[in-house]
Amino acid sequence: MSVLIVGSTALDSIQTPQRENPRLLGGSASHAAVAASFFSTVKLVGILGDDFPKRYLNLYRRHRIDLEGLQIAPGKTFHWAGEYEVNMDNRRTLETELGVFEKFSPTLSPSHQAAPFVLLANIAPALQHHVLNQMRRPKFVVADTMDLWLNIALEDLLRLLKRIDALVLNDSEAHQLTKADNILVAAKRIHRLGPKYVIIKKGASGAFLSAPGGIFLTPAYPLAKVVDPTGAGDSFVGGMTGYLATARGPLEKNLRRAMIYGTVVASFCCEGFGLQRTTKLTRSKIEQRVEELERLTRF
Amino acid sequence: MSVLIVGSTALDSIQTPQRENPRLLGGSASHAAVAASFFSTVKLVGILGDDFPKRYLNLYRRHRIDLEGLQIAPGKTFHWAGEYEVNMDNRRTLETELGVFEKFSPTLSPSHQAAPFVLLANIAPALQHHVLNQMRRPKFVVADTMDLWLNIALEDLLRLLKRIDALVLNDSEAHQLTKADNILVAAKRIHRLGPKYVIIKKGASGAFLSAPGGIFLTPAYPLAKVVDPTGAGDSFVGGMTGYLATARGPLEKNLRRAMIYGTVVASFCCEGFGLQRTTKLTRSKIEQRVEELERLTRF
Repeated sequence: MSVLIVGSTALDSIQTPQRENPRLLGGSASHAAVAASFFSTVKLVGILGDDFPKRYLNLYRRHRIDLEGLQIAPGKTFHWAGEYEVNMDNRRTLETELGVFEKFSPTLSPSHQAAPFVLLANIAPALQHHVLNQMRRPKFVVADTMDLWLNIALEDLLRLLKRIDALVLNDSEAHQLTKADNILVAAKRIHRLGPKYVIIKKGASGAFLSAPGGIFLTPAYPLAKVVDPTGAGDSFVGGMTGYLATARGPLEKNLRRAMIYGTVVASFCCEGFGLQRTTKLTRSKIEQRVEELERLTRF
Repeated sequence: MSVLIVGSTALDSIQTPQRENPRLLGGSASHAAVAASFFSTVKLVGILGDDFPKRYLNLYRRHRIDLEGLQIAPGKTFHWAGEYEVNMDNRRTLETELGVFEKFSPTLSPSHQAAPFVLLANIAPALQHHVLNQMRRPKFVVADTMDLWLNIALEDLLRLLKRIDALVLNDSEAHQLTKADNILVAAKRIHRLGPKYVIIKKGASGAFLSAPGGIFLTPAYPLAKVVDPTGAGDSFVGGMTGYLATARGPLEKNLRRAMIYGTVVASFCCEGFGLQRTTKLTRSKIEQRVEELERLTRF
């Protein structure tokens, strides 16, 4: 089944202690869409300026991403510039230019409205609502978020939580949202706000699922070197939702395995700048690392 | 097979935001010995002052711990007083009185010298050497350590690393020892210092094994409430070594499973002050939680 993905489509300029990388393909929806494309048909909803390099459009196309919902408007593409410190843990935003993103208000085509899986990738909750309002009867809705929306759009986000099946957020955001230090307590409080499935990302410590059938602990795939973690969270949720959309059988069992696929795609994402490593992936390379994770955790 | 455990036998006064707990049974060897006692015969090597409460001696005995190597000397038992902050992450030492521990220089009996498994629990590396010098031909030697010894006894510790099979330390200590941020890189550097098996504890994020057959990721058992984490690391290494000493079959496969048993005993340890929860355990309660961890990680 297909996945509709809405989020930011951007150009990212990423500085690390070793390198500068101007105007890479980035944005939550780009990372999530490429990650999901290894498993299912992806319908991308986003907006680009007329400065958007053609090679990036071709890159979407090479991943057979449906670009019907990708609007190209006069003006500049959303541009984010950021810098990582030596240990890759701390990120500093140097510049954010919204460009055409400021007037983004997508209208979905009938075929897009009928998509069974929806991933509301990281973007303003008001836009997530706007897309969800147009969906007909989605089978499963996943939303990602970030601390920025907890700070400036909490009410919209809380309303959204009542409309989605699964919320994905990281541990510090879960703490910020619930005031709970403990992950089990935080998940319980988030369930009360709406979502049946709560997925808490813990970076290099893996991810945590709280679901009706119990909890599940996903390890992170251990990497000897992290080149650029930008988009790892988006790749996780994209890979997860893409896998989930095509898996047969009980949803919760599939969701566990989907998180493993998400974590594996995220691990590849960290091994290159922007989408450089992810776009060179194949399904068989992903399967190899999933099998490796099985070996690394079997006892 | 039996495990010889040397380390500190102490009285711990533990303050948390909720409670004061004066003079609990504590020390690395006490925690490790009780944890190991659920799996194998334990020979405890330590020193106590004449102020040591009889009920604690009886507690060791109830766990069928061999006390032949437990010396009782005139003077005060090693006493540690510490305080935890609200989130239980930060610990502050309020007081350390070495007491009789200052003159601790154990002489092992012939039966103790023949123990096939040796756990050098957290204690000065010079004392770990002193015990190891007396062992006949141990089958497997595990050593635990802490940041204090990296700071004040690094040379002794580096010499010890060449004499042991497995080193257990936490992630910040691995970083301090190797200057590597990355856990895979840190483990590789520690192998070069001697140990064939490197086990890195990551607190609530589980533990990591690097071994000839590859790496293994142990999740931590998720707890809704941590009452007191004192001794959790000692319980981990004690449970692990105790399980390992009785498991049949290939050592490395057993070590993986042993780490799971260690993590489970450590999780119980965190649910009570000092050894209060651990000493109420049964093997079947441990097995239940091991099965639960299997369910929590299966995909």
